[in-house]
Amino acid sequence: MIKTPSLRLPSHKSPDPISFLTEKKSYSIENFVTEEGKTLPSFELGYETYGQLNDQGDNAILICHYFSGNSHAAGRYSAQDPEPGYWDDLIGPGKGIDTHKYFIVSVDILCNACPHLPFIKTIGPSTLEETTQKPYGMNFPHITIADMVHSQKIILDFLGVTHLKAVVGCSLGSMQAWQWAADYPDFLDKIIPIIGSGFETHPFVTSAVSLWAKMLTLDPCWNEGNYTPQNYPHEGMKAGLEILTWNCLSSHWAEVYGADGFKKLAEERAKFIEPNHFLYIIKAVQNFSVRKHLPKIKAKALVIAAASDFLMKPEFSKHAVQESLNHGIQASYLEIEGEGGHLDGLFAISKVSQNIKHFIEE
Amino acid sequence: MIKTPSLRLPSHKSPDPISFLTEKKSYSIENFVTEEGKTLPSFELGYETYGQLNDQGDNAILICHYFSGNSHAAGRYSAQDPEPGYWDDLIGPGKGIDTHKYFIVSVDILCNACPHLPFIKTIGPSTLEETTQKPYGMNFPHITIADMVHSQKIILDFLGVTHLKAVVGCSLGSMQAWQWAADYPDFLDKIIPIIGSGFETHPFVTSAVSLWAKMLTLDPCWNEGNYTPQNYPHEGMKAGLEILTWNCLSSHWAEVYGADGFKKLAEERAKFIEPNHFLYIIKAVQNFSVRKHLPKIKAKALVIAAASDFLMKPEFSKHAVQESLNHGIQASYLEIEGEGGHLDGLFAISKVSQNIKHFIEE
Repeated sequence: MIKTPSLRLPSHKSPDPISFLTEKKSYSIENFVTEEGKTLPSFELGYETYGQLNDQGDNAILICHYFSGNSHAAGRYSAQDPEPGYWDDLIGPGKGIDTHKYFIVSVDILCNACPHLPFIKTIGPSTLEETTQKPYGMNFPHITIADMVHSQKIILDFLGVTHLKAVVGCSLGSMQAWQWAADYPDFLDKIIPIIGSGFETHPFVTSAVSLWAKMLTLDPCWNEGNYTPQNYPHEGMKAGLEILTWNCLSSHWAEVYGADGFKKLAEERAKFIEPNHFLYIIKAVQNFSVRKHLPKIKAKALVIAAASDFLMKPEFSKHAVQESLNHGIQASYLEIEGEGGHLDGLFAISKVSQNIKHFIEE
Repeated sequence: MIKTPSLRLPSHKSPDPISFLTEKKSYSIENFVTEEGKTLPSFELGYETYGQLNDQGDNAILICHYFSGNSHAAGRYSAQDPEPGYWDDLIGPGKGIDTHKYFIVSVDILCNACPHLPFIKTIGPSTLEETTQKPYGMNFPHITIADMVHSQKIILDFLGVTHLKAVVGCSLGSMQAWQWAADYPDFLDKIIPIIGSGFETHPFVTSAVSLWAKMLTLDPCWNEGNYTPQNYPHEGMKAGLEILTWNCLSSHWAEVYGADGFKKLAEERAKFIEPNHFLYIIKAVQNFSVRKHLPKIKAKALVIAAASDFLMKPEFSKHAVQESLNHGIQASYLEIEGEGGHLDGLFAISKVSQNIKHFIEE
């Protein structure tokens, strides 16, 4: 008897009952200049905050989200909300990242993968160009990890945050954590990159994500990004998500949910993903590297990998720690035991929440 | 400086100088009835033999080839031949599988992936239907691993082989080895399934190979299998081979040859692969299971995995050994150390050739 597939394994901890309620907010950003020098039109960017900022504005922790995620990191939107934010096991009153002590901020990335979900506010290729009232499509400016980080800094400034205790992020979020350490070395104390590829994208990962993109772009309905609701790359988008899902889960997951599990899950999730945004995030991942900025980094790093992750392999994180130490960056390594693959960085985070707590507070 | 990509890592042993010369032969098979009851038209099937059959016909070893391989397992076709058969490190005079002692046979599989290479003889969807003189396409009968094995048995009978010392195969060949043990339990003593998925295809592998197929079938030029030289699924075929290649190599390989290495290699290799044959082999892999035949199996098994293989994971082989023992099948496990991924089963085979020798001779 195979169950309806879920990203979560039966062996993963179930979500806690309601720990706190939260809401999505947004901030209007104007005259945003991208790393490559293009100015974006004004846009609203979604964010969430948990806990209270102190008078000095220096008890803040920034959470950076993963590829298909968003800024809903913890809490529930209502008492009826069936599922809390993805790291509710880590963030909350008395938890590893304690909302009684810290002011926690999380921001939707530029080109967020799911721009049509009502609680996500972002900008990207699906945004309508003001003059034509048509989507930008592939004419939208390239977005980099540094651009994502820059947009987060604007929101932190607006909120009155003067200093970050830590930047914590998983997968794509781990890249943002390293980018924060490179771009704002005096603004933060610590970074916790989780299930990442180190401080630059490993060529194994670059080629994997190019295959995700290839699935989409092989669909003739993708049409160089000029798809319409009538002529939409459903097949390519589902297949792109299926390979992403295969890469991010594990053989144990396949034993639990069956060989068709990846496909079923991808079919459900594809409804929410905007194809061109998917491609823009892939490009940002492929271009990520802070190698040349290593000498500037001052933050102390706790690098966490998932033991069964065969995409962002534990050895990439170990290597990042070793190279960090070689560059005089204080760094240590921690592994999440489990059989869930890459996504143990989300669903098995409770296994390391005390380590995260100690690292932040030490 | 990145080298031209090769499936072989620089750390792999280079091929030996000429150990012996060999030639491709073929045998005409008539009235072949498939497992699902369809009769194939007469066809030539390619095979190679190394060493001499004894008078009793019982010193034979059968080698079963991998997904994109063929029966050229060892030796060279001429003194000018730049590369020997894929397991030349294992098979030859005085080697692990010693051509001085054994009569070694290898056969091109039905629906071989590369039917247009001059030294391969097979039948499949690219074969011309007699009445229409057009390729069968997707109307060709389904082929199973049992059908492949059955065709090999016909050739062994023709050659006068009365008994097999062992059946040895890697990847797809490992499935054939298990199938041999299930279908002809009295005809063989031992099997050596290498870099396999155990005695049935693991759901993780089933879903991976469905993604290989998806890349091809997303290309509109695939046209439900009715492609022509003028309207050929080049893009889909290259992409399908790229994901296959990514699955079969490793992160270390990506470090050596770069993120584009998989794509470059796939582009070169796609020229030789027949798209519909690719799909037929995938279907055969997905349908493989000898679970219900386990009580019939008499052969002793040496199950060999590659340590860095993340597709046919070592744990699948370990699990097969454990389950074999539970079913009263004598089985042991051996691992090839290395960083080359799945294909260490080809290119690092010399690391275990003495173990193979001892297992066959004990």
